[in-house]
Formats: sequence, structure tokens, C-alpha cells
Amino acid sequence: MSRIAEAVAALLAHFGARVSTSAHIRDQHGRGESWHPSAPPDAVVFAESTEDVAEAVKICAAHTVPIIAFGAGTSLEGQVNAVQGGVCIDLSRMTKVLAVHAPDLDCIIEAGVRRNQLNAHLRDQGLFFPVDPGADCTIGGMVATRASGTNAVRYGTMRESVLGLTMVLPDGSVIKTGGRARKSAAGYDLTRLFIGSEGTLGIVTEITLRLAAIPEAIAAATVSFPSVDDAVNTVIEVIQSAIPVARIELMDDVSVAAVNAFSKLSLPVQPTLFLEFHGSSVSVKDNAATVGELAKARGGSGFQWADQAEDRSKLWEARHKAYYASLAMRPNSKGLATDVCVPISRLAECIAETKADLAKASMPAPILGHVGDGNFHVVLVLDPDKPEELHEAEALHDRMVERAQSMGGTCTGEHGIGLGKIAHLKREAGDGVALMQRIKQAIDPAGIMNPGKMF
Amino acid sequence: MSRIAEAVAALLAHFGARVSTSAHIRDQHGRGESWHPSAPPDAVVFAESTEDVAEAVKICAAHTVPIIAFGAGTSLEGQVNAVQGGVCIDLSRMTKVLAVHAPDLDCIIEAGVRRNQLNAHLRDQGLFFPVDPGADCTIGGMVATRASGTNAVRYGTMRESVLGLTMVLPDGSVIKTGGRARKSAAGYDLTRLFIGSEGTLGIVTEITLRLAAIPEAIAAATVSFPSVDDAVNTVIEVIQSAIPVARIELMDDVSVAAVNAFSKLSLPVQPTLFLEFHGSSVSVKDNAATVGELAKARGGSGFQWADQAEDRSKLWEARHKAYYASLAMRPNSKGLATDVCVPISRLAECIAETKADLAKASMPAPILGHVGDGNFHVVLVLDPDKPEELHEAEALHDRMVERAQSMGGTCTGEHGIGLGKIAHLKREAGDGVALMQRIKQAIDPAGIMNPGKMF
Repeated sequence: MSRIAEAVAALLAHFGARVSTSAHIRDQHGRGESWHPSAPPDAVVFAESTEDVAEAVKICAAHTVPIIAFGAGTSLEGQVNAVQGGVCIDLSRMTKVLAVHAPDLDCIIEAGVRRNQLNAHLRDQGLFFPVDPGADCTIGGMVATRASGTNAVRYGTMRESVLGLTMVLPDGSVIKTGGRARKSAAGYDLTRLFIGSEGTLGIVTEITLRLAAIPEAIAAATVSFPSVDDAVNTVIEVIQSAIPVARIELMDDVSVAAVNAFSKLSLPVQPTLFLEFHGSSVSVKDNAATVGELAKARGGSGFQWADQAEDRSKLWEARHKAYYASLAMRPNSKGLATDVCVPISRLAECIAETKADLAKASMPAPILGHVGDGNFHVVLVLDPDKPEELHEAEALHDRMVERAQSMGGTCTGEHGIGLGKIAHLKREAGDGVALMQRIKQAIDPAGIMNPGKMF
Repeated sequence: MSRIAEAVAALLAHFGARVSTSAHIRDQHGRGESWHPSAPPDAVVFAESTEDVAEAVKICAAHTVPIIAFGAGTSLEGQVNAVQGGVCIDLSRMTKVLAVHAPDLDCIIEAGVRRNQLNAHLRDQGLFFPVDPGADCTIGGMVATRASGTNAVRYGTMRESVLGLTMVLPDGSVIKTGGRARKSAAGYDLTRLFIGSEGTLGIVTEITLRLAAIPEAIAAATVSFPSVDDAVNTVIEVIQSAIPVARIELMDDVSVAAVNAFSKLSLPVQPTLFLEFHGSSVSVKDNAATVGELAKARGGSGFQWADQAEDRSKLWEARHKAYYASLAMRPNSKGLATDVCVPISRLAECIAETKADLAKASMPAPILGHVGDGNFHVVLVLDPDKPEELHEAEALHDRMVERAQSMGGTCTGEHGIGLGKIAHLKREAGDGVALMQRIKQAIDPAGIMNPGKMF
């Protein structure tokens, strides 16, 4: 029997019906939401507890077979694709909210909890979890990719939002990192080492999260600009004025058209900023007025305020679905989503050069982004059956990354490295990659945790 | 010749007069500002560049001798004490501000820059670096201990304030981590791994820092309370109301008396909160009014507003010198500064139990802290020549740490582990310590970087 067959037999003996080798289930676990070709695992284990994950990892380790963690399958860089086969550990049944400490603004959850589930759970207590990628992903997946989203400009990313983790290491042992204190100087920051490690160092099973109080007042608005440049320069001025904006998001005209069509909005088809302010009624009014003036000075017009909660929900839901709206521009398409992030002073230039490069593109290429952080995406909407399109998209992506890196930026603000950015990481981190690999080797000497990713 | 003698000879050959083996210089480098007995290194090298540090490390590595980095010598847990001898690399001459990118709110500095120097440099550009421990330490040292201070409740700690590092690794190679983008999901978070590693993984020589814009309006106040409990409960309510206070600091009556005497203030000798608000004039006024109401409801009285910049400076300088004020309560004393940090809902209870325990103490024990973060210090002001006092102080400290850890807190919010909290780290991080040691072994296999610390 092969190693993998032995491992699957041992998993079946332990987990029974919670192990599947059906083609259907394996296919479902072979890819995320990106263009990367599906690579199904040999088997899928549905874990229901940290102990389950630990046991599954021990069995896989004993047979030296690859282990891939799986949450909601929403990753954008092929992180879940089982490129070397092996066993997928599905954590989507681990959906317990274990504790909410409202007075401390923190909670402890299992890794399979999704962000919408969590926010629904928290709402009655006047709390929310601010990190919000487009997809309704699992929080465990968000830890693994160091995710962020529209609120990061005010509330930070997963890097700032996790207080502690329960991790299953590659030998099946379990450790807890961090704690519930807001800050700590106790030893190496294992929590931050695991955040963004994309399943290559272990599997996160429980997470202690920082939460935020739902603010007394919230105001959201959209505002249209004559050009992307004007919109971006407004953002730069807002950030440099230290106005505590909660969200400041850009869509170019192509994105706006896609979102209008997909989410039944009727925004002017122009470069648009989506804004939100959080605070006391007084400070929200004050901040909104200041930003309004900055926007007007740059030609911003057609302010549409969403004062009601349901209007705001509709607006932000449309924003969150922008990736799906982009794909809907073209039937049977897949997306190659770029994710560069640059110092904000270079943002206008970086976007302008990118737009010029995209002018020649043969496929739709909407631009949108978390511009308050200097982060923007181009969704290259390609036909996966046409290799020349993928080739073209990758060339555009490469130039975009080189451009961002030459400006002191990064190849990925929030999607991670996965399969798609291995070369980009090398260029960006230089000799740091060798150090990362030494750490990988120290923690996962057999190289069984999500092999083929990141390096 | 011994290994150390060979290393010193090689250092002298390379660095000439910038190497010292004089007793006076070695003594200056054998301790920080805590009670830990001095442990002078065998030699001190004054580095003036990353290349200098790399060369010194290479020489030490070739002879397998311990390497201890030294900045301003203000550490509180014996981090700089050369307990196994070896070579101290002094970075205090590396004081260049290499770049300030005002539009991006970041700067690049050498590790020997001190926080007051940096803030003086930045002021004209409307910027400041918010992380502010009591001492005028080097920023490199602040990276090494994951420092924080009074502004952390609003602006975060060193964990949130560093964008990238230049590190000299234990073999003398140089890597750059991070970059200038606000966020990144590119590979393992080496930056955060080095922050708080206390010189045990390498030496930081250059730092890219996030800065903040000096706010349009600043308001500071002190307010006195009938009891520590009332003051702490006010803090809890402020934090839970999500009021964006910039600073919210507690001093008990003993601290206030010490600070009054040391800094020539005349605050009422009662438990006191030091507050500061940053923002637009409107929001500062609004936030201050809300906090004022919360404080009054808890018996807060005698609001003293420091409206002028010089009054605020005086106030915060007094706060920053509180450790020295504590030591000045008793001639020829040394301090054992505790540093626990707990979830804020447990803070009142943790401080109350600690006060009860301290009631029996034979030495002065002022309490003060960054209560918005749940972090507080007791300065146990002891006579270093009386072993029984050290014994008593350590027992008090142990109980305090156990209390905090049992509440989900940490043994150190900002001072680090060093020599003083090795056992506490073990209890807190459990099997995580073994993982930290595996990482240490992978990066520093010869164990030459600051040996005897943390583990």
C-alpha cells in the first residue's frame, strides 16, 4: 500500500464517515475562487474539534503525507489546492463561538466560524468584528492569509486583530499562543508568525479575536470623481490629515459598472469613493464635513449619503461582492486578482501607470481597492480555457508587482503568496526567504504542511 | 588564547579605538536600570553602521563568543547584562534619521536613534512617533523589547508601529524585512518575529517606523478619584464606550506623592487618571466631555486641564519620569518593576488584590500604569544590598504574575522577559516555549545571541 493509502485507511479507522474519498467531495476541496487549476486532495477529513485536527495530523505525519487545511474555499492564490495530493482537513464544521467577553471586546471562536456568522452573533451585544474581506470566509482562513478588507484603515488587519491562537503543529501537538491581554512582551510573537503562514507551519483551530464596539454613529457615502487620480489624491489628503475615516474605498468606472449590474445599484459610472465614518454623532458629522470639503476641492460630486442601516448594508454588500461582480462581466470566466500595496504617496502614480498598462489588455480589468491602506486590486477577468489570456494576465500582473515593489510596496496586501506569487515573494523578501525556509524546516522538518505553497 | 581573547584581538584589528576593554566602559554596559546585578561584557564595540555590526557579529561568530546589543541601557529586565560575558555591540552612535516620508507617515532610522531625538526631528513636519516608554530609550531597544507606553491605547505598541527592519543575523549576514507598505501578506512575518526577541535572534540596525500626524487639537487633564477602584472602573467604561482616548494613565496615591516630589507638581495625593485626547477641536471637546461625565459619575473631581503645550509637556514628562520618581523615594535604591497586563474587565480586581498583597510590603510600592491597555506596574523600591528585600519583592512579583495569568493576562505588557521572567514565560506560554527554542536554534544554532535571556 502507498503511504497515502495507508494514511487514508488509518483516518477511516479513526474518523469513519467523516473521511471522504468521493470524487465530488475531493473536487470541492481542490480549489479556491481563483483561476488556479483544481488540484483535489486524496481524501478529506471533516474535523469537529482541535482534538480531531490533532489526530488527523498525527496520522498524516506518521505516514508523511501532505496536509492541507480548508475553510470556506475562498482563497485567491491557490492556497487550498492540493498540488502534491494528500489529506485535506476541512474545518468548516468547527463553527462554535466559544466565548464572547463583551466588556473586554474580545471573543474566542473555532476556526471554521465565518465572518458573517460571527457578526450576526455579536450584534446584540453592540460589538462587531471589523476585518472584512470580500468573501464570507472562515476566520481561520483569514488568519492563515493575514487577511484584511475595507475597515483596515481604521481597525487594522488580522495582524492587529488576533490576540491568541490554538495551533496544531505538524507533529500533531497542540500549543496555545498569546492570550487575552491587549499587549504582551512575553517571548517570541508566535501568534504573528502563524498569522499569514498559509497552512505551512500548522493548522489554526481556535482564535482569540479583538472586537470593536459598534459606534454610536455611522455615516456612509459615495462620491464620484472626474478621474481616478482625483479620487486617489483625495484619499491621500484624508489620510495625511489624520481624519479617522473607517472605510475609504476606490472603484474605477469599470468596477462601478460591474457592481451596478451585479448588485442592482445605480451609481454614476465614474471613479468613485465609498466612505464610512464611525464615532460619536458629533465627530462623525465633523469628519464627514472635512472629507466632503477635500473631495469637492478635487472635483468630487454627487455625494450620496446612506443614512439608514439597510442602505449602508446594501452599499457595502455590493462592495464586498465586487469580485463576483467582476467575474459576472464575462460568462464562464475566472479571476486573476492582483493585490499590490504601496506607500500612499505613490498610489496615484502606481494606479495611473497600471491603468496605462491595462489600456492594452484584451480582457476586462476593473480596478478597486482599499486605497486608504495603499492597497488596490485589478481583477483580470480571463477565460481559463485560453492559455494566451492567462499568459497575458500573468505578464500584466508581473509588471504591476515590479512597479509596486520598486515604489517600496508589496506584491500582496491581503491575499497571500500561495501558488501565484512565489517568484514575487523571492524578489521582495530577498534573503529573508531563506530565513523563512529555515523556520519552516525547524517547525515542519518533514515538509508535510501545505507543500508547494509560498516557497 | 581563549576564544574571547581571540575575538577581542580580531575586533581591535578591525575597529581599532572603537573597541574598548576598559573597566569603566565595560561597567557602563553591564546593566540597565533595574535591580539585576551588573554583568559587564568582556569588550564593547561602538558600531557606526550596519556594516560595522555585521563585521563585529562575523568576528564573534567565528570565535563562538556571546554577542549583546546595547542601546541606551534603559532596559528593566536585565536584557543587556552580559551574564555569560562576551562582546557588547553598542549602537548608540547610530543616530541617523535616514529618511522621513511625511506624506506616507513613515520614516527610516538607525537603531540608535532615541525617541526624544526622533520627535524633535519630526516636529516641524507635523509628525510624531507615538510609542513612548518612560525612558528616553533607543528605538532599536524598543524594537527588541516590544515596548509600548502611554499612547498605546490609541496608537498601538512597537508591534503595530514597525513596518520593516534591517537585521544582522547571527552569522553576520544582513536581511531586510517588511517594507513601506501599510500592510502585507507576503510570507512569514519576520518583522514581528524580531520585535520582542530581545537580541536573541539578531541585531536590529535600521527601522522603518509608522508615524502619526500631530493632531489638530490636543487636550490633557488630570482627575482625582476617591479610590483606585473608581479610577479603574472609569477607565473600563471609557474603553468599553469606544471613546478614542489617546492616553489614559493611572497613578495611585503613592505614585502621585512620588511624582509631586520629584517633578515639583502639586497634584492632590489621591488615585489619579492622566488623560489626553487627540483629534479635531470638535471631536476632542466631545470626547473630553463624555469622559468627564463618566469620571464624575465615579466620584472623579478636581479636573485640571492642561491647555498649553508646555503644561502638557510638564505633565507627561512627570509621568514619564515616574520610575525615577519612585526610586527617588528611597536613597540608593533599585527598582523591581512589575509589568502585568490583564483583560480590562479584570483590571479593577487585579489591582485591588495586588494592593491588598502590597499592604504587607516592607518597601515603597507605588502603582501606576497604562490602564487603558489593562497594563500596570508596581515599582518595588528595594535596597539592593538586602537580599531579604529582593526575596520579598520577588515573592510579591510572583504572586502578581500568577494572579494576572490566572485572569487570562500576561507577565509582561512591555518590559520583556530578559533575566527576570524566564519562569513566568514558561508558565504562560507552556509548550510554546519549546517552539520558541526551536526557532532560536534554527536562527542561532551556536546560541551566541544574548545567551541566558528569555529561556
